[in-house]
Amino acid sequence: MRKIIIFMIIILRLNHRIERDKRLTTHVALTARAFLADKLYYSGQKDSGLELSVNKVNEKFGSNFTINYLENPVKFLQENKNKFIIVHLSVYGLNVNEEIKEIKKKENLIIIVGGEKVEPIYYKLSDYNISITSQPISEVSALAIFLHLLNNGKELKNSFKNAKLKIIGIERGKKVLSSK
Amino acid sequence: MRKIIIFMIIILRLNHRIERDKRLTTHVALTARAFLADKLYYSGQKDSGLELSVNKVNEKFGSNFTINYLENPVKFLQENKNKFIIVHLSVYGLNVNEEIKEIKKKENLIIIVGGEKVEPIYYKLSDYNISITSQPISEVSALAIFLHLLNNGKELKNSFKNAKLKIIGIERGKKVLSSK
Repeated sequence: MRKIIIFMIIILRLNHRIERDKRLTTHVALTARAFLADKLYYSGQKDSGLELSVNKVNEKFGSNFTINYLENPVKFLQENKNKFIIVHLSVYGLNVNEEIKEIKKKENLIIIVGGEKVEPIYYKLSDYNISITSQPISEVSALAIFLHLLNNGKELKNSFKNAKLKIIGIERGKKVLSSK
Repeated sequence: MRKIIIFMIIILRLNHRIERDKRLTTHVALTARAFLADKLYYSGQKDSGLELSVNKVNEKFGSNFTINYLENPVKFLQENKNKFIIVHLSVYGLNVNEEIKEIKKKENLIIIVGGEKVEPIYYKLSDYNISITSQPISEVSALAIFLHLLNNGKELKNSFKNAKLKIIGIERGKKVLSSK
Protein backbone atom coordinates (compact mmCIF):
# COMPACT_ATOMS: atom_id res chain seq x y z
CA MET A 1 0.00 0.00 0.00
CA ARG A 2 1.27 3.42 -0.89
CA LYS A 3 1.86 5.75 2.01
CA ILE A 4 -0.04 8.98 1.62
CA ILE A 5 2.02 11.93 2.78
CA ILE A 6 0.18 15.03 3.78
CA PHE A 7 2.27 18.16 3.83
CA MET A 8 1.07 20.92 6.00
CA ILE A 9 2.26 24.50 6.22
CA ILE A 10 1.10 26.43 9.26
CA ILE A 11 1.87 30.09 9.85
CA LEU A 12 2.03 31.37 13.40
CA ARG A 13 1.70 35.15 13.72
CA LEU A 14 2.75 36.32 17.19
CA ASN A 15 1.45 39.15 19.37
CA HIS A 16 -1.31 40.59 17.23
CA ARG A 17 -2.62 43.91 18.55
CA ILE A 18 -6.01 44.91 17.19
CA GLU A 19 -5.38 48.63 16.86
CA ARG A 20 -1.82 48.62 15.69
CA ASP A 21 -1.57 45.44 13.59
CA LYS A 22 -5.01 45.00 12.09
CA ARG A 23 -4.00 45.62 8.51
CA LEU A 24 -0.54 44.10 8.78
CA THR A 25 -1.88 40.83 10.15
CA THR A 26 -4.50 40.80 7.38
CA HIS A 27 -1.68 41.20 4.87
CA VAL A 28 0.25 38.39 6.55
CA ALA A 29 -2.83 36.16 6.35
CA LEU A 30 -3.63 36.98 2.71
CA THR A 31 -0.01 36.42 1.75
CA ALA A 32 0.00 33.09 3.62
CA ARG A 33 -3.16 32.02 1.78
CA ALA A 34 -2.06 33.06 -1.71
CA PHE A 35 1.38 31.54 -1.17
CA LEU A 36 -0.21 28.19 -0.36
CA ALA A 37 0.03 27.87 3.38
CA ASP A 38 -2.78 25.81 4.91
CA LYS A 39 -3.52 27.59 8.18
CA LEU A 40 -2.72 30.69 10.09
CA TYR A 41 -2.79 30.85 13.87
CA TYR A 42 -2.34 34.17 15.58
CA SER A 43 -1.69 35.04 19.19
CA GLY A 44 -1.98 38.30 21.10
CA GLN A 45 -5.44 39.87 21.00
CA LYS A 46 -8.35 37.93 19.55
CA ASP A 47 -9.73 39.91 16.61
CA SER A 48 -12.98 38.77 15.02
CA GLY A 49 -12.79 41.57 12.43
CA LEU A 50 -9.50 40.17 11.18
CA GLU A 51 -10.91 36.64 11.02
CA LEU A 52 -14.00 37.85 9.19
CA SER A 53 -12.08 39.71 6.51
CA VAL A 54 -9.79 36.75 5.82
CA ASN A 55 -12.72 34.33 5.73
CA LYS A 56 -14.53 36.60 3.29
CA VAL A 57 -11.59 36.47 0.89
CA ASN A 58 -11.55 32.69 1.19
CA GLU A 59 -15.22 32.44 0.49
CA LYS A 60 -15.00 34.60 -2.62
CA PHE A 61 -11.66 33.54 -4.06
CA GLY A 62 -11.43 29.94 -2.84
CA SER A 63 -8.84 27.82 -0.99
CA ASN A 64 -9.20 25.84 2.22
CA PHE A 65 -7.07 28.25 4.19
CA THR A 66 -8.15 28.81 7.80
CA ILE A 67 -7.40 31.44 10.40
CA ASN A 68 -7.68 30.77 14.14
CA TYR A 69 -6.79 32.44 17.38
CA LEU A 70 -4.29 30.79 19.71
CA GLU A 71 -4.11 31.73 23.33
CA ASN A 72 -0.89 30.00 24.19
CA PRO A 73 1.53 29.81 21.25
CA VAL A 74 4.42 28.44 23.32
CA LYS A 75 2.32 25.49 24.44
CA PHE A 76 1.18 24.99 20.84
CA LEU A 77 4.78 24.83 19.64
CA GLN A 78 5.83 22.50 22.44
CA GLU A 79 2.97 20.14 21.66
CA ASN A 80 3.72 20.13 17.93
CA LYS A 81 7.49 20.05 18.03
CA ASN A 82 7.61 16.34 17.26
CA LYS A 83 5.35 16.50 14.24
CA PHE A 84 6.49 19.77 12.70
CA ILE A 85 9.72 21.49 11.84
CA ILE A 86 9.60 25.00 13.29
CA VAL A 87 11.01 27.86 11.24
CA HIS A 88 11.17 31.36 12.70
CA LEU A 89 11.59 34.24 10.27
CA SER A 90 13.82 36.80 11.92
CA VAL A 91 16.23 39.42 10.67
CA TYR A 92 18.83 37.88 13.01
CA GLY A 93 18.61 34.37 11.56
CA LEU A 94 20.72 32.47 9.05
CA ASN A 95 20.57 33.39 5.36
CA VAL A 96 17.60 31.73 3.68
CA ASN A 97 19.73 30.89 0.63
CA GLU A 98 21.86 28.56 2.69
CA GLU A 99 19.09 26.79 4.57
CA ILE A 100 16.15 26.54 2.19
CA LYS A 101 17.35 23.38 0.45
CA GLU A 102 17.40 21.47 3.72
CA ILE A 103 14.08 22.91 4.88
CA LYS A 104 12.45 21.83 1.60
CA LYS A 105 13.13 18.20 2.51
CA LYS A 106 10.93 18.48 5.60
CA GLU A 107 7.28 17.66 5.38
CA ASN A 108 5.31 19.66 7.88
CA LEU A 109 6.30 23.17 8.78
CA ILE A 110 5.27 25.76 11.29
CA ILE A 111 6.54 29.16 10.18
CA ILE A 112 6.63 31.81 12.90
CA VAL A 113 6.41 35.49 12.00
CA GLY A 114 6.89 37.98 14.74
CA GLY A 115 5.08 40.97 15.95
CA GLU A 116 7.05 43.95 17.19
CA LYS A 117 8.93 41.94 19.80
CA VAL A 118 9.68 38.23 19.86
CA GLU A 119 10.54 36.60 23.18
CA PRO A 120 13.74 34.48 23.38
CA ILE A 121 11.75 31.27 23.89
CA TYR A 122 10.73 31.34 20.20
CA TYR A 123 14.34 31.41 19.07
CA LYS A 124 14.96 28.38 21.27
CA LEU A 125 11.89 26.42 20.21
CA SER A 126 12.65 26.92 16.51
CA ASP A 127 14.62 24.41 14.50
CA TYR A 128 15.61 27.19 12.11
CA ASN A 129 15.89 30.94 12.63
CA ILE A 130 15.95 32.28 9.10
CA SER A 131 16.55 35.72 7.72
CA ILE A 132 15.45 37.22 4.42
CA THR A 133 18.12 39.84 3.46
CA SER A 134 19.50 40.52 7.01
CA GLN A 135 17.90 43.95 6.71
CA PRO A 136 14.88 45.32 8.53
CA ILE A 137 12.03 44.60 6.10
CA SER A 138 8.54 43.41 6.93
CA GLU A 139 7.05 40.18 8.18
CA VAL A 140 4.81 40.36 5.11
CA SER A 141 7.63 40.42 2.57
CA ALA A 142 9.74 37.97 4.58
CA LEU A 143 6.88 35.48 4.57
CA ALA A 144 6.19 35.98 0.85
CA ILE A 145 9.81 35.38 -0.13
CA PHE A 146 10.21 32.40 2.18
CA LEU A 147 7.08 30.69 0.85
CA HIS A 148 8.00 31.59 -2.74
CA LEU A 149 11.36 29.85 -2.32
CA LEU A 150 9.77 26.92 -0.49
CA ASN A 151 7.15 26.50 -3.27
CA ASN A 152 9.64 26.95 -6.11
CA GLY A 153 7.34 29.72 -7.27
CA LYS A 154 4.34 27.47 -7.87
CA GLU A 155 2.00 30.01 -6.20
CA LEU A 156 2.49 32.27 -9.23
CA LYS A 157 0.68 29.74 -11.42
CA ASN A 158 -1.82 28.53 -8.86
CA SER A 159 -5.57 28.84 -9.03
CA PHE A 160 -7.98 27.72 -6.30
CA LYS A 161 -10.59 25.20 -7.43
CA ASN A 162 -13.39 26.29 -5.10
CA ALA A 163 -13.36 29.97 -6.09
CA LYS A 164 -16.59 31.87 -6.70
CA LEU A 165 -14.69 34.77 -8.21
CA LYS A 166 -11.67 34.45 -10.43
CA ILE A 167 -9.47 37.34 -11.49
CA ILE A 168 -8.29 37.04 -15.07
CA GLY A 169 -5.09 38.98 -15.70
CA ILE A 170 -5.39 41.54 -18.50
CA GLU A 171 -3.20 44.27 -19.91
CA ARG A 172 -5.33 47.18 -18.69
CA GLY A 173 -8.41 47.39 -16.53
CA LYS A 174 -10.15 44.64 -14.55
CA LYS A 175 -11.68 41.32 -15.43
CA VAL A 176 -13.32 39.11 -12.81
CA LEU A 177 -15.22 35.93 -13.65
CA SER A 178 -18.04 34.78 -11.42
CA SER A 179 -19.07 31.14 -11.20
CA LYS A 180 -22.59 32.02 -10.09
CA MET B 1 34.72 55.46 -24.54
CA ARG B 2 32.55 53.08 -22.59
CA LYS B 3 29.00 54.17 -22.09
CA ILE B 4 28.03 54.17 -18.43
CA ILE B 5 24.50 52.95 -17.92
CA ILE B 6 22.78 53.94 -14.73
CA PHE B 7 19.85 51.79 -13.81
CA MET B 8 17.34 53.31 -11.54
CA ILE B 9 14.44 51.70 -9.74
CA ILE B 10 11.88 54.07 -8.32
CA ILE B 11 8.89 52.95 -6.27
CA LEU B 12 5.77 55.08 -6.29
CA ARG B 13 3.41 54.41 -3.38
CA LEU B 14 -0.01 55.95 -4.02
CA ASN B 15 -2.53 57.50 -1.65
CA HIS B 16 -0.76 57.21 1.70
CA ARG B 17 -3.02 58.00 4.64
CA ILE B 18 -1.20 58.79 7.88
CA GLU B 19 -3.56 57.06 10.26
CA ARG B 20 -4.46 54.02 8.25
CA ASP B 21 -1.31 53.27 6.26
CA LYS B 22 1.51 54.41 8.50
CA ARG B 23 2.96 50.98 9.17
CA LEU B 24 2.11 49.51 5.79
CA THR B 25 3.86 52.30 3.92
CA THR B 26 6.87 51.90 6.24
CA HIS B 27 6.91 48.21 5.32
CA VAL B 28 6.65 49.07 1.62
CA ALA B 29 9.59 51.47 2.01
CA LEU B 30 11.78 49.05 3.99
CA THR B 31 11.05 46.30 1.50
CA ALA B 32 11.90 48.64 -1.39
CA ARG B 33 15.19 49.56 0.28
CA ALA B 34 16.26 46.01 1.17
CA PHE B 35 15.25 44.74 -2.27
CA LEU B 36 17.54 47.31 -3.89
CA ALA B 37 15.23 49.99 -5.18
CA ASP B 38 16.83 53.45 -5.26
CA LYS B 39 14.01 55.75 -4.27
CA LEU B 40 10.52 55.77 -2.96
CA TYR B 41 8.04 58.52 -3.71
CA TYR B 42 4.71 58.53 -1.96
CA SER B 43 1.58 60.52 -2.61
CA GLY B 44 -1.50 61.15 -0.49
CA GLN B 45 -0.80 62.70 2.91
CA LYS B 46 2.66 64.01 3.68
CA ASP B 47 3.98 62.12 6.71
CA SER B 48 7.20 63.28 8.33
CA GLY B 49 7.05 60.44 10.88
CA LEU B 50 7.18 57.92 8.05
CA GLU B 51 10.10 59.71 6.40
CA LEU B 52 11.96 59.91 9.70
CA SER B 53 11.62 56.22 10.47
CA VAL B 54 12.82 55.17 7.00
CA ASN B 55 15.73 57.63 7.12
CA LYS B 56 16.73 56.28 10.53
CA VAL B 57 16.97 52.75 9.13
CA ASN B 58 19.09 54.07 6.26
CA GLU B 59 21.39 55.88 8.58
CA LYS B 60 21.94 52.82 10.76
CA PHE B 61 21.96 50.04 8.20
CA GLY B 62 23.27 51.85 5.12
CA SER B 63 22.19 52.24 1.47
CA ASN B 64 21.53 55.40 -0.52
CA PHE B 65 17.80 54.84 -0.58
CA THR B 66 15.67 57.97 -0.33
CA ILE B 67 12.04 58.65 0.50
CA ASN B 68 10.21 61.75 -0.72
CA TYR B 69 6.70 63.09 -0.83
CA LEU B 70 5.08 63.76 -4.20
CA GLU B 71 2.09 66.02 -4.47
CA ASN B 72 1.10 65.18 -8.00
CA PRO B 73 1.95 61.60 -8.97
CA VAL B 74 0.12 61.76 -12.32
CA LYS B 75 2.22 64.73 -13.41
CA PHE B 76 5.35 62.93 -12.19
CA LEU B 77 4.53 59.89 -14.31
CA GLN B 78 3.68 61.98 -17.36
CA GLU B 79 6.96 63.87 -17.08
CA ASN B 80 8.99 60.68 -16.67
CA LYS B 81 7.22 58.45 -19.16
CA ASN B 82 9.94 58.91 -21.78
CA LYS B 83 12.81 58.05 -19.48
CA PHE B 84 11.24 55.26 -17.45
CA ILE B 85 9.24 52.13 -18.05
CA ILE B 86 6.22 52.23 -15.76
CA VAL B 87 5.10 49.03 -14.06
CA HIS B 88 1.95 48.97 -11.96
CA LEU B 89 1.54 46.08 -9.53
CA SER B 90 -2.13 45.16 -9.48
CA VAL B 91 -4.06 41.98 -8.80
CA TYR B 92 -5.82 42.56 -12.13
CA GLY B 93 -2.65 42.67 -14.23
CA LEU B 94 -0.85 40.11 -16.37
CA ASN B 95 1.00 37.23 -14.71
CA VAL B 96 4.48 38.32 -13.64
CA ASN B 97 5.96 35.02 -14.89
CA GLU B 98 5.06 35.90 -18.44
CA GLU B 99 6.25 39.51 -18.42
CA ILE B 100 9.29 39.63 -16.17
CA LYS B 101 11.77 38.56 -18.84
CA GLU B 102 10.84 41.48 -21.04
CA ILE B 103 10.77 43.95 -18.15
CA LYS B 104 14.28 42.86 -17.12
CA LYS B 105 15.61 44.18 -20.43
CA LYS B 106 14.51 47.71 -19.56
CA GLU B 107 16.84 50.03 -17.76
CA ASN B 108 14.94 52.48 -15.64
CA LEU B 109 11.76 51.50 -13.90
CA ILE B 110 9.05 53.20 -11.95
CA ILE B 111 7.08 50.61 -10.00
CA ILE B 112 3.68 51.75 -8.78
CA VAL B 113 2.09 50.16 -5.72
CA GLY B 114 -1.41 51.14 -4.87
CA GLY B 115 -3.18 52.26 -1.81
CA GLU B 116 -6.72 51.08 -1.18
CA LYS B 117 -8.04 52.40 -4.47
CA VAL B 118 -6.14 53.10 -7.68
CA GLU B 119 -7.64 55.49 -10.22
CA PRO B 120 -7.97 54.28 -13.85
CA ILE B 121 -5.40 56.84 -15.06
CA TYR B 122 -2.61 54.74 -13.48
CA TYR B 123 -3.61 51.67 -15.46
CA LYS B 124 -3.45 53.79 -18.61
CA LEU B 125 -0.14 55.48 -17.84
CA SER B 126 1.55 52.15 -17.06
CA ASP B 127 3.47 50.22 -19.68
CA TYR B 128 2.81 47.05 -17.70
CA ASN B 129 0.07 46.15 -15.25
CA ILE B 130 1.47 43.13 -13.47
CA SER B 131 -0.06 40.74 -11.00
CA ILE B 132 1.63 38.55 -8.40
CA THR B 133 -0.59 35.45 -7.95
CA SER B 134 -3.92 36.98 -9.20
CA GLN B 135 -5.09 36.72 -5.60
CA PRO B 136 -5.67 39.51 -3.09
CA ILE B 137 -2.37 39.69 -1.23
CA SER B 138 -0.54 42.78 -0.07
CA GLU B 139 1.34 45.57 -1.78
CA VAL B 140 4.24 44.65 0.51
CA SER B 141 4.50 41.04 -0.65
CA ALA B 142 3.74 41.94 -4.27
CA LEU B 143 6.61 44.42 -4.27
CA ALA B 144 8.98 41.96 -2.58
CA ILE B 145 8.29 39.20 -5.09
CA PHE B 146 8.47 41.54 -8.08
CA LEU B 147 11.82 42.98 -7.01
CA HIS B 148 13.13 39.52 -6.08
CA LEU B 149 12.36 38.28 -9.60
CA LEU B 150 13.74 41.46 -11.17
CA ASN B 151 17.00 41.16 -9.15
CA ASN B 152 17.35 37.42 -9.73
CA GLY B 153 17.47 37.16 -5.96
CA LYS B 154 20.63 39.21 -5.54
CA GLU B 155 19.11 41.14 -2.60
CA LEU B 156 19.43 37.95 -0.53
CA LYS B 157 23.22 38.19 -0.71
CA ASN B 158 23.49 41.97 -0.62
CA SER B 159 25.15 44.05 2.06
CA PHE B 160 25.23 47.85 2.12
CA LYS B 161 28.71 49.36 2.24
CA ASN B 162 27.87 52.46 4.24
CA ALA B 163 26.22 50.65 7.15
CA LYS B 164 26.94 51.61 10.75
CA LEU B 165 25.24 48.47 12.02
CA LYS B 166 25.46 45.11 10.39
CA ILE B 167 23.32 42.13 11.35
CA ILE B 168 25.24 38.86 11.23
CA GLY B 169 22.96 35.87 10.76
CA ILE B 170 23.32 33.26 13.50
CA GLU B 171 21.52 30.08 14.44
CA ARG B 172 19.96 31.41 17.63
CA GLY B 173 19.87 34.84 19.24
CA LYS B 174 21.10 38.15 17.86
CA LYS B 175 24.44 39.42 16.61
CA VAL B 176 24.89 42.98 15.42
CA LEU B 177 28.26 44.49 14.50
CA SER B 178 28.83 48.19 14.94
CA SER B 179 31.41 50.09 12.88
CA LYS B 180 31.84 52.77 15.52
